[in-house]
Amino acid sequence: MARDTTAALVVIGNEILSGKVADTNSTFLAQQLRAYGVALRRMVVIPDEVDVIAEAVRTLAPTVDVLFTSGGVGPTHDDVTIEGVARGLGRRVVRHPQIEALLRGHLGERLNEAHLKMAEVVEGTELDTGGNVAFPTFRVDNIYVLPGIPEIFREKVLALRERLATDPFHLRIVYVREAESAIAAHLNRTVEEFPDLLLGSYPKLNEPEYRVRLTLESKDRDYLERALAALLALLPADAVVRVE
Amino acid sequence: MARDTTAALVVIGNEILSGKVADTNSTFLAQQLRAYGVALRRMVVIPDEVDVIAEAVRTLAPTVDVLFTSGGVGPTHDDVTIEGVARGLGRRVVRHPQIEALLRGHLGERLNEAHLKMAEVVEGTELDTGGNVAFPTFRVDNIYVLPGIPEIFREKVLALRERLATDPFHLRIVYVREAESAIAAHLNRTVEEFPDLLLGSYPKLNEPEYRVRLTLESKDRDYLERALAALLALLPADAVVRVE
Repeated sequence: MARDTTAALVVIGNEILSGKVADTNSTFLAQQLRAYGVALRRMVVIPDEVDVIAEAVRTLAPTVDVLFTSGGVGPTHDDVTIEGVARGLGRRVVRHPQIEALLRGHLGERLNEAHLKMAEVVEGTELDTGGNVAFPTFRVDNIYVLPGIPEIFREKVLALRERLATDPFHLRIVYVREAESAIAAHLNRTVEEFPDLLLGSYPKLNEPEYRVRLTLESKDRDYLERALAALLALLPADAVVRVE
Repeated sequence: MARDTTAALVVIGNEILSGKVADTNSTFLAQQLRAYGVALRRMVVIPDEVDVIAEAVRTLAPTVDVLFTSGGVGPTHDDVTIEGVARGLGRRVVRHPQIEALLRGHLGERLNEAHLKMAEVVEGTELDTGGNVAFPTFRVDNIYVLPGIPEIFREKVLALRERLATDPFHLRIVYVREAESAIAAHLNRTVEEFPDLLLGSYPKLNEPEYRVRLTLESKDRDYLERALAALLALLPADAVVRVE
Protein backbone atom coordinates (compact mmCIF):
# COMPACT_ATOMS: atom_id res chain seq x y z
CA MET A 1 0.00 0.00 0.00
CA ALA A 2 1.40 3.42 -0.98
CA ARG A 3 2.18 5.84 1.82
CA ASP A 4 -0.66 8.25 2.58
CA THR A 5 -0.36 11.82 1.45
CA THR A 6 0.09 13.82 4.67
CA ALA A 7 -1.04 17.32 5.56
CA ALA A 8 -1.02 19.89 8.34
CA LEU A 9 -2.95 23.09 8.93
CA VAL A 10 -1.80 26.36 10.49
CA VAL A 11 -4.70 28.62 11.49
CA ILE A 12 -3.58 32.21 11.99
CA GLY A 13 -5.92 34.32 14.07
CA ASN A 14 -5.94 36.26 17.32
CA GLU A 15 -9.73 36.27 17.02
CA ILE A 16 -9.80 32.49 17.48
CA LEU A 17 -7.32 32.39 20.38
CA SER A 18 -9.30 35.11 22.12
CA GLY A 19 -12.57 33.22 21.66
CA LYS A 20 -14.24 35.95 19.62
CA VAL A 21 -14.64 33.77 16.54
CA ALA A 22 -15.14 30.00 16.49
CA ASP A 23 -12.82 28.39 13.94
CA THR A 24 -14.85 26.25 11.55
CA ASN A 25 -12.19 25.95 8.83
CA SER A 26 -10.24 23.29 10.69
CA THR A 27 -13.21 20.94 11.00
CA PHE A 28 -14.12 21.49 7.35
CA LEU A 29 -10.59 20.80 6.17
CA ALA A 30 -10.32 17.69 8.37
CA GLN A 31 -13.52 16.26 6.90
CA GLN A 32 -12.57 17.03 3.32
CA LEU A 33 -9.02 15.69 3.60
CA ARG A 34 -10.43 12.48 5.07
CA ALA A 35 -12.73 12.16 2.05
CA TYR A 36 -9.75 12.84 -0.25
CA GLY A 37 -7.72 10.10 1.48
CA VAL A 38 -5.18 12.57 2.85
CA ALA A 39 -3.89 12.04 6.41
CA LEU A 40 -4.12 15.26 8.43
CA ARG A 41 -1.31 15.01 10.98
CA ARG A 42 -1.58 18.25 12.92
CA MET A 43 -3.51 21.49 13.29
CA VAL A 44 -2.12 24.55 15.02
CA VAL A 45 -3.78 27.85 15.93
CA ILE A 46 -1.32 30.71 16.39
CA PRO A 47 -1.51 34.50 16.74
CA ASP A 48 -1.06 37.05 13.93
CA GLU A 49 2.66 37.45 14.60
CA VAL A 50 5.25 37.26 11.85
CA ASP A 51 7.85 35.36 13.87
CA VAL A 52 5.38 32.83 15.20
CA ILE A 53 4.02 32.17 11.71
CA ALA A 54 7.55 31.89 10.33
CA GLU A 55 8.52 29.35 12.97
CA ALA A 56 5.34 27.30 12.40
CA VAL A 57 5.97 27.19 8.66
CA ARG A 58 9.65 26.37 9.08
CA THR A 59 8.98 23.47 11.45
CA LEU A 60 5.83 22.03 9.88
CA ALA A 61 6.28 22.36 6.10
CA PRO A 62 9.16 19.82 5.90
CA THR A 63 7.19 17.21 7.90
CA VAL A 64 4.19 16.86 5.57
CA ASP A 65 3.38 16.68 1.87
CA VAL A 66 0.99 19.61 1.98
CA LEU A 67 0.76 22.46 4.47
CA PHE A 68 -2.30 24.72 4.55
CA THR A 69 -2.52 28.10 6.18
CA SER A 70 -5.84 29.75 7.00
CA GLY A 71 -6.27 33.46 7.68
CA GLY A 72 -4.24 36.63 7.81
CA VAL A 73 -4.22 37.47 4.09
CA GLY A 74 -6.54 40.52 3.95
CA PRO A 75 -5.62 44.17 3.53
CA THR A 76 -5.35 45.24 7.20
CA HIS A 77 -2.54 45.81 9.69
CA ASP A 78 -2.99 42.41 11.32
CA ASP A 79 -2.77 40.45 8.05
CA VAL A 80 0.83 39.26 8.25
CA THR A 81 0.61 35.69 6.97
CA ILE A 82 2.39 36.41 3.67
CA GLU A 83 5.24 38.06 5.53
CA GLY A 84 5.36 35.21 8.05
CA VAL A 85 5.44 32.49 5.39
CA ALA A 86 8.11 34.42 3.48
CA ARG A 87 10.28 34.70 6.57
CA GLY A 88 9.75 31.01 7.34
CA LEU A 89 10.99 30.07 3.88
CA GLY A 90 13.72 32.72 3.75
CA ARG A 91 12.08 34.42 0.75
CA ARG A 92 11.08 37.98 -0.11
CA VAL A 93 7.56 39.37 -0.36
CA VAL A 94 6.88 40.57 -3.92
CA ARG A 95 3.93 42.09 -5.71
CA HIS A 96 2.46 39.60 -8.18
CA PRO A 97 1.84 41.33 -11.53
CA GLN A 98 -1.03 39.01 -12.48
CA ILE A 99 -2.88 39.68 -9.22
CA GLU A 100 -2.24 43.39 -9.48
CA ALA A 101 -3.68 43.37 -13.03
CA LEU A 102 -6.68 41.41 -11.78
CA LEU A 103 -7.32 43.97 -9.02
CA ARG A 104 -6.86 46.90 -11.43
CA GLY A 105 -9.32 45.30 -13.82
CA HIS A 106 -11.90 44.86 -11.05
CA LEU A 107 -11.44 48.14 -9.20
CA GLY A 108 -10.07 50.66 -11.71
CA GLU A 109 -9.78 54.07 -10.12
CA ARG A 110 -10.89 52.82 -6.70
CA LEU A 111 -7.70 50.75 -6.29
CA ASN A 112 -5.81 51.85 -3.15
CA GLU A 113 -2.77 50.78 -1.13
CA ALA A 114 -4.84 48.43 0.99
CA HIS A 115 -6.04 46.62 -2.14
CA LEU A 116 -2.49 46.39 -3.44
CA LYS A 117 -1.45 44.61 -0.25
CA MET A 118 -3.60 41.74 -1.51
CA ALA A 119 -1.33 41.44 -4.57
CA GLU A 120 1.65 40.70 -2.32
CA VAL A 121 2.86 37.11 -2.39
CA VAL A 122 5.84 35.09 -1.24
CA GLU A 123 8.50 34.98 -3.94
CA GLY A 124 8.00 31.81 -5.99
CA THR A 125 4.23 31.69 -5.48
CA GLU A 126 2.22 29.97 -8.20
CA LEU A 127 -1.40 30.86 -8.87
CA ASP A 128 -3.84 27.99 -8.95
CA THR A 129 -7.07 28.74 -10.77
CA GLY A 130 -8.40 25.16 -10.97
CA GLY A 131 -11.97 24.46 -9.92
CA ASN A 132 -13.23 27.90 -10.96
CA VAL A 133 -12.25 29.80 -7.84
CA ALA A 134 -13.23 33.48 -7.88
CA PHE A 135 -9.69 34.58 -6.96
CA PRO A 136 -6.55 32.50 -7.67
CA THR A 137 -5.27 30.28 -4.87
CA PHE A 138 -1.69 30.96 -3.74
CA ARG A 139 0.71 28.04 -3.55
CA VAL A 140 4.37 28.37 -2.66
CA ASP A 141 6.38 25.13 -2.57
CA ASN A 142 4.13 22.69 -0.67
CA ILE A 143 2.18 25.43 1.12
CA TYR A 144 -1.32 26.56 0.20
CA VAL A 145 -1.97 30.02 1.63
CA LEU A 146 -5.76 30.20 2.09
CA PRO A 147 -7.93 33.05 3.35
CA GLY A 148 -9.70 32.71 6.70
CA ILE A 149 -13.18 33.77 5.57
CA PRO A 150 -15.03 30.44 5.78
CA GLU A 151 -16.96 30.73 2.51
CA ILE A 152 -13.79 31.37 0.51
CA PHE A 153 -11.72 28.86 2.46
CA ARG A 154 -14.27 26.18 1.62
CA GLU A 155 -14.44 27.10 -2.04
CA LYS A 156 -10.67 26.80 -2.33
CA VAL A 157 -10.44 23.51 -0.45
CA LEU A 158 -13.17 21.99 -2.62
CA ALA A 159 -11.34 23.22 -5.72
CA LEU A 160 -8.28 21.19 -4.63
CA ARG A 161 -10.19 17.90 -4.58
CA GLU A 162 -8.91 16.67 -7.93
CA ARG A 163 -5.35 17.49 -7.10
CA LEU A 164 -5.36 15.92 -3.62
CA ALA A 165 -7.87 13.08 -3.71
CA THR A 166 -6.23 9.68 -3.76
CA ASP A 167 -7.97 6.69 -2.20
CA PRO A 168 -10.46 7.35 0.57
CA PHE A 169 -10.95 5.58 3.86
CA HIS A 170 -13.87 3.20 4.34
CA LEU A 171 -15.82 3.61 7.56
CA ARG A 172 -18.09 1.37 9.67
CA ILE A 173 -19.75 2.48 12.88
CA VAL A 174 -20.93 0.33 15.80
CA TYR A 175 -23.19 1.78 18.52
CA VAL A 176 -22.84 0.01 21.86
CA ARG A 177 -24.96 0.24 24.99
CA GLU A 178 -22.20 -0.98 27.34
CA ALA A 179 -19.77 1.39 29.09
CA GLU A 180 -16.43 1.88 27.39
CA SER A 181 -14.60 0.25 30.29
CA ALA A 182 -16.76 -2.88 29.92
CA ILE A 183 -15.74 -3.41 26.28
CA ALA A 184 -12.18 -2.06 26.37
CA ALA A 185 -10.63 -5.55 26.44
CA HIS A 186 -12.55 -6.49 23.26
CA LEU A 187 -11.35 -3.34 21.51
CA ASN A 188 -7.76 -3.98 22.51
CA ARG A 189 -7.94 -7.57 21.26
CA THR A 190 -9.43 -6.46 17.91
CA VAL A 191 -6.62 -3.96 17.40
CA GLU A 192 -4.02 -6.59 18.27
CA GLU A 193 -5.51 -8.92 15.67
CA PHE A 194 -5.95 -6.14 13.05
CA PRO A 195 -3.04 -3.75 13.63
CA ASP A 196 -3.82 -1.67 10.53
CA LEU A 197 -7.38 -0.99 11.65
CA LEU A 198 -8.12 2.55 12.78
CA LEU A 199 -10.44 2.03 15.73
CA GLY A 200 -12.05 4.95 17.53
CA SER A 201 -14.14 4.77 20.71
CA TYR A 202 -16.30 7.76 21.64
CA PRO A 203 -18.34 7.69 24.86
CA LYS A 204 -21.48 9.78 24.73
CA LEU A 205 -23.17 11.11 27.85
CA ASN A 206 -26.89 11.83 28.08
CA GLU A 207 -27.70 9.73 25.02
CA PRO A 208 -30.57 7.32 25.70
CA GLU A 209 -29.87 4.97 22.78
CA TYR A 210 -26.19 4.10 23.24
CA ARG A 211 -23.19 4.76 25.46
CA VAL A 212 -20.28 4.38 23.06
CA ARG A 213 -19.87 4.98 19.34
CA LEU A 214 -17.12 2.89 17.78
CA THR A 215 -15.62 3.84 14.42
CA LEU A 216 -13.66 1.31 12.34
CA GLU A 217 -11.69 2.55 9.36
CA SER A 218 -9.37 1.22 6.71
CA LYS A 219 -8.52 1.99 3.11
CA ASP A 220 -8.88 -1.75 2.46
CA ARG A 221 -12.59 -2.56 2.43
CA ASP A 222 -12.13 -6.30 2.83
CA TYR A 223 -9.76 -5.88 5.80
CA LEU A 224 -12.29 -3.53 7.38
CA GLU A 225 -15.14 -6.03 7.05
CA ARG A 226 -13.05 -8.82 8.56
CA ALA A 227 -12.08 -6.60 11.50
CA LEU A 228 -15.72 -5.62 12.01
CA ALA A 229 -16.79 -9.28 12.03
CA ALA A 230 -14.07 -10.10 14.57
CA LEU A 231 -15.13 -7.28 16.87
CA LEU A 232 -18.83 -8.18 16.65
CA ALA A 233 -17.95 -11.79 17.52
CA LEU A 234 -16.23 -10.57 20.71
CA LEU A 235 -18.94 -8.17 21.88
CA PRO A 236 -21.89 -9.60 23.86
CA ALA A 237 -24.81 -9.87 21.41
CA ASP A 238 -27.10 -7.60 23.43
CA ALA A 239 -24.40 -4.91 23.70
CA VAL A 240 -24.72 -3.85 20.07
CA VAL A 241 -27.44 -1.31 19.36
CA ARG A 242 -26.75 -1.16 15.63
CA VAL A 243 -24.06 -1.24 12.95
CA GLU A 244 -23.76 1.29 10.15
CA MET B 1 0.71 46.61 34.02
CA ALA B 2 1.50 43.07 35.14
CA ARG B 3 2.33 40.51 32.48
CA ASP B 4 -0.66 38.45 31.37
CA THR B 5 -0.92 34.88 32.49
CA THR B 6 -0.33 32.81 29.34
CA ALA B 7 -1.74 29.46 28.30
CA ALA B 8 -1.67 26.87 25.53
CA LEU B 9 -3.89 23.91 24.68
CA VAL B 10 -2.94 20.53 23.25
CA VAL B 11 -5.94 18.61 21.88
CA ILE B 12 -5.19 14.91 21.50
CA GLY B 13 -7.48 13.08 19.13
CA ASN B 14 -7.33 11.14 15.88
CA GLU B 15 -11.11 11.55 15.70
CA ILE B 16 -10.67 15.31 15.27
CA LEU B 17 -7.85 15.11 12.72
CA SER B 18 -9.90 12.63 10.71
CA GLY B 19 -12.95 14.90 10.76
CA LYS B 20 -15.18 12.40 12.56
CA VAL B 21 -15.70 14.63 15.58
CA ALA B 22 -15.76 18.44 15.61
CA ASP B 23 -13.62 19.79 18.44
CA THR B 24 -15.65 22.16 20.59
CA ASN B 25 -13.33 22.16 23.61
CA SER B 26 -10.87 24.57 22.02
CA THR B 27 -13.49 27.25 21.37
CA PHE B 28 -14.90 26.83 24.86
CA LEU B 29 -11.48 27.11 26.49
CA ALA B 30 -10.57 30.15 24.36
CA GLN B 31 -13.73 31.96 25.43
CA GLN B 32 -13.34 31.09 29.11
CA LEU B 33 -9.66 32.02 29.27
CA ARG B 34 -10.49 35.37 27.67
CA ALA B 35 -13.08 35.96 30.36
CA TYR B 36 -10.51 34.96 33.01
CA GLY B 37 -7.99 37.43 31.55
CA VAL B 38 -5.59 34.67 30.51
CA ALA B 39 -3.83 35.03 27.14
CA LEU B 40 -4.18 31.84 25.09
CA ARG B 41 -1.06 31.73 22.91
CA ARG B 42 -1.48 28.55 20.93
CA MET B 43 -3.71 25.55 20.29
CA VAL B 44 -2.49 22.33 18.74
CA VAL B 45 -4.40 19.25 17.60
CA ILE B 46 -2.26 16.11 17.42
CA PRO B 47 -2.84 12.37 17.01
CA ASP B 48 -3.04 9.81 19.83
CA GLU B 49 0.65 8.97 19.63
CA VAL B 50 2.90 8.87 22.68
CA ASP B 51 5.94 10.44 21.01
CA VAL B 52 3.96 13.26 19.40
CA ILE B 53 2.26 14.07 22.72
CA ALA B 54 5.62 13.96 24.52
CA GLU B 55 7.19 16.35 22.02
CA ALA B 56 4.23 18.75 22.22
CA VAL B 57 4.39 18.81 26.02
CA ARG B 58 8.17 19.20 26.07
CA THR B 59 8.14 22.13 23.65
CA LEU B 60 5.00 23.95 24.84
CA ALA B 61 4.96 23.59 28.63
CA PRO B 62 8.04 25.77 29.20
CA THR B 63 6.66 28.58 27.00
CA VAL B 64 3.46 29.30 28.94
CA ASP B 65 2.24 29.60 32.52
CA VAL B 66 -0.45 26.97 32.09
CA LEU B 67 -0.70 24.14 29.56
CA PHE B 68 -3.97 22.26 29.10
CA THR B 69 -4.37 18.91 27.42
CA SER B 70 -7.74 17.66 26.19
CA GLY B 71 -8.52 14.03 25.43
CA GLY B 72 -6.87 10.64 25.51
CA VAL B 73 -7.42 9.83 29.19
CA GLY B 74 -10.06 7.07 29.00
CA PRO B 75 -9.66 3.32 29.50
CA THR B 76 -9.05 2.20 25.88
CA HIS B 77 -6.05 1.29 23.74
CA ASP B 78 -5.87 4.74 22.12
CA ASP B 79 -5.84 6.66 25.41
CA VAL B 80 -2.13 7.44 25.68
CA THR B 81 -2.09 11.00 26.96
CA ILE B 82 -0.83 10.10 30.45
CA GLU B 83 2.01 8.11 28.94
CA GLY B 84 2.77 10.93 26.49
CA VAL B 85 2.84 13.64 29.16
CA ALA B 86 5.01 11.41 31.36
CA ARG B 87 7.50 10.88 28.56
CA GLY B 88 7.49 14.59 27.76
CA LEU B 89 8.42 15.39 31.36
CA GLY B 90 10.76 12.44 31.80
CA ARG B 91 8.59 10.95 34.57
CA ARG B 92 7.07 7.56 35.25
CA VAL B 93 3.42 6.58 35.06
CA VAL B 94 2.16 5.49 38.48
CA ARG B 95 -1.14 4.32 39.88
CA HIS B 96 -2.60 6.98 42.16
CA PRO B 97 -3.84 5.36 45.39
CA GLN B 98 -6.51 8.00 45.99
CA ILE B 99 -8.01 7.54 42.51
CA GLU B 100 -7.84 3.78 42.84
CA ALA B 101 -9.70 3.98 46.16
CA LEU B 102 -12.28 6.27 44.57
CA LEU B 103 -12.86 3.81 41.74
CA ARG B 104 -13.06 0.86 44.13
CA GLY B 105 -15.59 2.75 46.21
CA HIS B 106 -17.74 3.45 43.16
CA LEU B 107 -17.44 0.14 41.35
CA GLY B 108 -16.69 -2.49 43.97
CA GLU B 109 -16.64 -5.94 42.40
CA ARG B 110 -17.13 -4.57 38.89
CA LEU B 111 -13.68 -2.91 38.90
CA ASN B 112 -11.58 -4.24 36.02
CA GLU B 113 -8.19 -3.55 34.42
CA ALA B 114 -9.71 -0.96 32.07
CA HIS B 115 -11.05 0.97 35.05
CA LEU B 116 -7.69 0.80 36.79
CA LYS B 117 -6.06 2.43 33.76
CA MET B 118 -8.00 5.52 34.79
CA ALA B 119 -6.11 5.58 38.10
CA GLU B 120 -2.81 5.96 36.25
CA VAL B 121 -1.21 9.39 36.50
CA VAL B 122 2.10 11.03 35.75
CA GLU B 123 4.41 10.86 38.76
CA GLY B 124 4.04 14.07 40.75
CA THR B 125 0.40 14.63 39.79
CA GLU B 126 -1.71 16.58 42.23
CA LEU B 127 -5.45 16.13 42.47
CA ASP B 128 -7.54 19.26 42.27
CA THR B 129 -11.04 18.91 43.67
CA GLY B 130 -11.95 22.61 43.73
CA GLY B 131 -15.24 23.73 42.23
CA ASN B 132 -17.03 20.49 43.09
CA VAL B 133 -15.89 18.46 40.10
CA ALA B 134 -17.31 14.92 39.99
CA PHE B 135 -13.83 13.40 39.51
CA PRO B 136 -10.58 15.11 40.63
CA THR B 137 -8.71 17.14 38.01
CA PHE B 138 -5.12 16.03 37.34
CA ARG B 139 -2.40 18.65 37.47
CA VAL B 140 1.28 17.90 37.04
CA ASP B 141 3.65 20.87 37.21
CA ASN B 142 1.96 23.56 35.07
CA ILE B 143 -0.07 21.04 33.04
CA TYR B 144 -3.77 20.34 33.52
CA VAL B 145 -4.64 16.97 31.98
CA LEU B 146 -8.32 17.23 31.06
CA PRO B 147 -10.65 14.65 29.51
CA GLY B 148 -11.93 15.19 25.98
CA ILE B 149 -15.61 14.54 26.67
CA PRO B 150 -17.03 18.05 26.24
CA GLU B 151 -19.39 18.01 29.25
CA ILE B 152 -16.57 17.02 31.62
CA PHE B 153 -13.99 19.25 29.97
CA ARG B 154 -16.29 22.23 30.51
CA GLU B 155 -17.04 21.35 34.11
CA LYS B 156 -13.33 21.21 34.87
CA VAL B 157 -12.47 24.44 33.05
CA LEU B 158 -15.25 26.27 34.88
CA ALA B 159 -13.98 24.86 38.17
CA LEU B 160 -10.60 26.52 37.48
CA ARG B 161 -12.08 30.02 37.22
CA GLU B 162 -11.09 31.11 40.71
CA ARG B 163 -7.56 29.86 40.32
CA LEU B 164 -6.96 31.42 36.89
CA ALA B 165 -9.11 34.53 36.69
CA THR B 166 -7.14 37.74 36.98
CA ASP B 167 -8.27 40.92 35.22
CA PRO B 168 -10.44 40.53 32.13
CA PHE B 169 -10.29 42.32 28.80
CA HIS B 170 -12.79 45.05 28.00
CA LEU B 171 -14.35 44.86 24.55
CA ARG B 172 -16.06 47.34 22.20
CA ILE B 173 -17.44 46.40 18.79
CA VAL B 174 -17.96 48.65 15.76
CA TYR B 175 -20.04 47.48 12.79
CA VAL B 176 -19.06 49.14 9.52
CA ARG B 177 -20.79 49.15 6.16
CA GLU B 178 -17.64 49.99 4.15
CA ALA B 179 -15.34 47.31 2.70
CA GLU B 180 -12.32 46.42 4.81
CA SER B 181 -9.95 47.79 2.14
CA ALA B 182 -11.71 51.16 2.28
CA ILE B 183 -11.10 51.59 6.02
CA ALA B 184 -7.74 49.81 6.35
CA ALA B 185 -5.78 53.07 6.50
CA HIS B 186 -7.93 54.29 9.43
CA LEU B 187 -7.36 51.03 11.28
CA ASN B 188 -3.64 51.22 10.74
CA ARG B 189 -3.52 54.79 11.98
CA THR B 190 -5.53 53.93 15.11
CA VAL B 191 -3.15 51.10 15.96
CA GLU B 192 -0.16 53.36 15.44
CA GLU B 193 -1.64 55.88 17.83
CA PHE B 194 -2.74 53.23 20.35
CA PRO B 195 -0.11 50.49 20.14
CA ASP B 196 -1.52 48.56 23.12
CA LEU B 197 -4.96 48.33 21.56
CA LEU B 198 -6.00 44.88 20.33
CA LEU B 199 -7.86 45.66 17.13
CA GLY B 200 -9.59 42.93 15.12
CA SER B 201 -11.21 43.33 11.72
CA TYR B 202 -13.62 40.63 10.51
CA PRO B 203 -15.21 40.93 7.06
CA LYS B 204 -18.60 39.25 6.80
CA LEU B 205 -20.02 38.09 3.49
CA ASN B 206 -23.76 37.84 2.79
CA GLU B 207 -24.67 40.07 5.72
CA PRO B 208 -27.12 42.82 4.72
CA GLU B 209 -26.49 45.08 7.70
CA TYR B 210 -22.70 45.48 7.73
CA ARG B 211 -19.55 44.42 5.87
CA VAL B 212 -16.94 44.48 8.61
CA ARG B 213 -17.07 43.86 12.36
CA LEU B 214 -14.29 45.62 14.26
CA THR B 215 -13.34 44.52 17.77
CA LEU B 216 -11.36 46.81 20.08
CA GLU B 217 -9.93 45.37 23.27
CA SER B 218 -7.81 46.41 26.20
CA LYS B 219 -7.51 45.60 29.88
CA ASP B 220 -7.48 49.37 30.50
CA ARG B 221 -11.02 50.61 30.05
CA ASP B 222 -10.05 54.27 29.73
CA TYR B 223 -7.41 53.53 27.08
CA LEU B 224 -10.01 51.49 25.19
CA GLU B 225 -12.53 54.33 25.19
CA ARG B 226 -9.94 56.83 23.95
CA ALA B 227 -8.90 54.49 21.14
CA LEU B 228 -12.54 53.96 20.18
CA ALA B 229 -13.14 57.70 20.04
CA ALA B 230 -10.05 58.16 17.86
CA LEU B 231 -11.15 55.47 15.44
CA LEU B 232 -14.71 56.82 15.21
CA ALA B 233 -13.30 60.29 14.46
CA LEU B 234 -11.36 58.82 11.52
CA LEU B 235 -14.17 56.75 10.01
CA PRO B 236 -16.65 58.52 7.68
CA ALA B 237 -19.79 59.18 9.73
CA ASP B 238 -22.08 57.19 7.45
CA ALA B 239 -19.72 54.21 7.51
CA VAL B 240 -20.63 53.23 11.07
CA VAL B 241 -23.73 51.05 11.43
CA ARG B 242 -23.52 50.85 15.22
CA VAL B 243 -21.20 50.63 18.20
CA GLU B 244 -21.58 48.12 21.02
